[in-house]
Amino acid sequence: MKIAIVFGGVSFEHEISIVSSIAMKDVLKNELAYIFIDKDRDLYEIPSSKINSKLFSSGEYKKFDKAFLKKGGFYKISGLFKKEQNIDFDVVLNLSHGGDGEDGILSSVLDFYNIPFIAPRTEACVVSSNKFITKGYATSVQVNTLDYKYFTKNDNIKVDMFPVILKPVKLGSSIGVSIVKNQDELQYALDVAFEFDDAIIIEPFVSGVKEYNLAGTKINGEFVFSIIEEPQKAEFLDFDKKYLDFSRTSKAKEVDLGEKLNNEIKESFKRLYNTLFEGSIIRCDFFVIDDKVYLNEINSIPGSMANYLFEDFNTIFNNLVKNLPAKKHIPITYEYVNKIQATKGK
Amino acid sequence: MKIAIVFGGVSFEHEISIVSSIAMKDVLKNELAYIFIDKDRDLYEIPSSKINSKLFSSGEYKKFDKAFLKKGGFYKISGLFKKEQNIDFDVVLNLSHGGDGEDGILSSVLDFYNIPFIAPRTEACVVSSNKFITKGYATSVQVNTLDYKYFTKNDNIKVDMFPVILKPVKLGSSIGVSIVKNQDELQYALDVAFEFDDAIIIEPFVSGVKEYNLAGTKINGEFVFSIIEEPQKAEFLDFDKKYLDFSRTSKAKEVDLGEKLNNEIKESFKRLYNTLFEGSIIRCDFFVIDDKVYLNEINSIPGSMANYLFEDFNTIFNNLVKNLPAKKHIPITYEYVNKIQATKGK
Repeated sequence: MKIAIVFGGVSFEHEISIVSSIAMKDVLKNELAYIFIDKDRDLYEIPSSKINSKLFSSGEYKKFDKAFLKKGGFYKISGLFKKEQNIDFDVVLNLSHGGDGEDGILSSVLDFYNIPFIAPRTEACVVSSNKFITKGYATSVQVNTLDYKYFTKNDNIKVDMFPVILKPVKLGSSIGVSIVKNQDELQYALDVAFEFDDAIIIEPFVSGVKEYNLAGTKINGEFVFSIIEEPQKAEFLDFDKKYLDFSRTSKAKEVDLGEKLNNEIKESFKRLYNTLFEGSIIRCDFFVIDDKVYLNEINSIPGSMANYLFEDFNTIFNNLVKNLPAKKHIPITYEYVNKIQATKGK
Repeated sequence: MKIAIVFGGVSFEHEISIVSSIAMKDVLKNELAYIFIDKDRDLYEIPSSKINSKLFSSGEYKKFDKAFLKKGGFYKISGLFKKEQNIDFDVVLNLSHGGDGEDGILSSVLDFYNIPFIAPRTEACVVSSNKFITKGYATSVQVNTLDYKYFTKNDNIKVDMFPVILKPVKLGSSIGVSIVKNQDELQYALDVAFEFDDAIIIEPFVSGVKEYNLAGTKINGEFVFSIIEEPQKAEFLDFDKKYLDFSRTSKAKEVDLGEKLNNEIKESFKRLYNTLFEGSIIRCDFFVIDDKVYLNEINSIPGSMANYLFEDFNTIFNNLVKNLPAKKHIPITYEYVNKIQATKGK
């Protein structure tokens, strides 16, 4: 089973995607192809033997074959006679974190060209990448979230209680996120957040709150879970720390919260994953406050897909590849157009 | 301003899209190009002078130039020397109703290739095309919806109160929708709905409920509304009737619900449209029950974009073309990769 890792993309997490994708060489036993989306959305096929992070920062990647999309796959113009060639792989792994990858753009493009892929489908991407839409969705599937206020750029923004945490609705990896302790700090935090996005949410900031991460997937209708981890963190994980997190391959330490909370976290995960996230391995980050479980966020494409949380990630990954969701067949019969033609002909 | 209408697509509403797109010839004063997505997702450029519905049901469209996507636009291989040629237009109008067009696939593809377009962006498509996600979103923006239950294919489905209306979550134009009057009718209705989708919602069916449609858009931060119409309908609009609706070009009759309700409908529209639907002309369908306004559904690409509800659709359309939402610039600097390289070099 040959996997084509598609990575990079027009995203604030472009670099994270590079690091995460390179780390997969140590995680997956599969043969790998790498397809890089650069900042201009030009595509390149990078030989897996040659891949390293410097290739991208230096611009050297441009010496490799340019790739492009056509029905059923990626192609390149290559060889002495500049012939069009199919790039060989069985399934795509979308590891473009943040924009392009996690906002549904890339999943849509792969769907449009009928390319099988591991990643959340378009709907699941949107539900998880936009924190405001996540809130509404979580409520619909009966999963608790912290109270919040939603504002767009031109709103009159008032905050009564501090401290709060202020987040652009659409970015991951803590980009543009601030903890605001008092009124004086508010304007700067707003300026930062609106630098990245046109809409924000503001939540109460609970100091010292315990966060727990659970990754999982669904294979043949059955959930497969990782261990629950309590990630090490500072006041909150900043970009640098999360960045390093994206290249984690060593195993995490399991935490046992007792049967009731362990179950509640798993049941919340199941309700969130639902049928919507089929085809993907996701990580849900929960808060536990006064013995109650709250969703913090859904990472629809966690760094290196949170392999470090699983005992045997490689096997789970390859089982998922064999169980990707099938699209419903949509018959196009021209029944109605024919009916109109027939009526006109009378 | 030349408009490229992209239509068809792999969708239960493929034929509706054809009828709706042809109708635009009478609505828009712009020069038009037509790009057809066939049932295999092959693309064809159809000359606007030659377009008619029979072209598609007969398969004759295949005699026209095949088109394909590249950065910045659509291209074709054409002429005596089989040269690659750019298809000339200023902006795309996405008129692929239902799947592909309204589920976010096509908007994502256009975004990926940096092609300016009129249609909801990916997030707005997902929020409006999946009725379950619509419910959560409407609640988040403080717009009422009818109570509902959500079920997926393998759930144990129980209904206590009848009549109910049963809807696949992802289809428009009443496809797969049934009114269920008693327990005996339930199983058949479920079989029909699950034929089209893996998830459904069940709502109480309110007989004789009044429905009101309002279309609108936002131009330069200001809302522009159509009239409010009470559409003529049978018990509920079935596919045939909605289908004819998609080729409507004659003006609709305004209904006046009094200042309070008129305003409440408009305010609900504004909260739904929010910043999410910028770049599109949508139609929201509301119920009024006991003087309270409820969202029925958001039509993110209504048939012929609900031109019949506007006094001067052509002007509004062309103003919107000039005010499409801009994407945030995302700088890709390799700051972090460089930092790692520097640390390694030490």
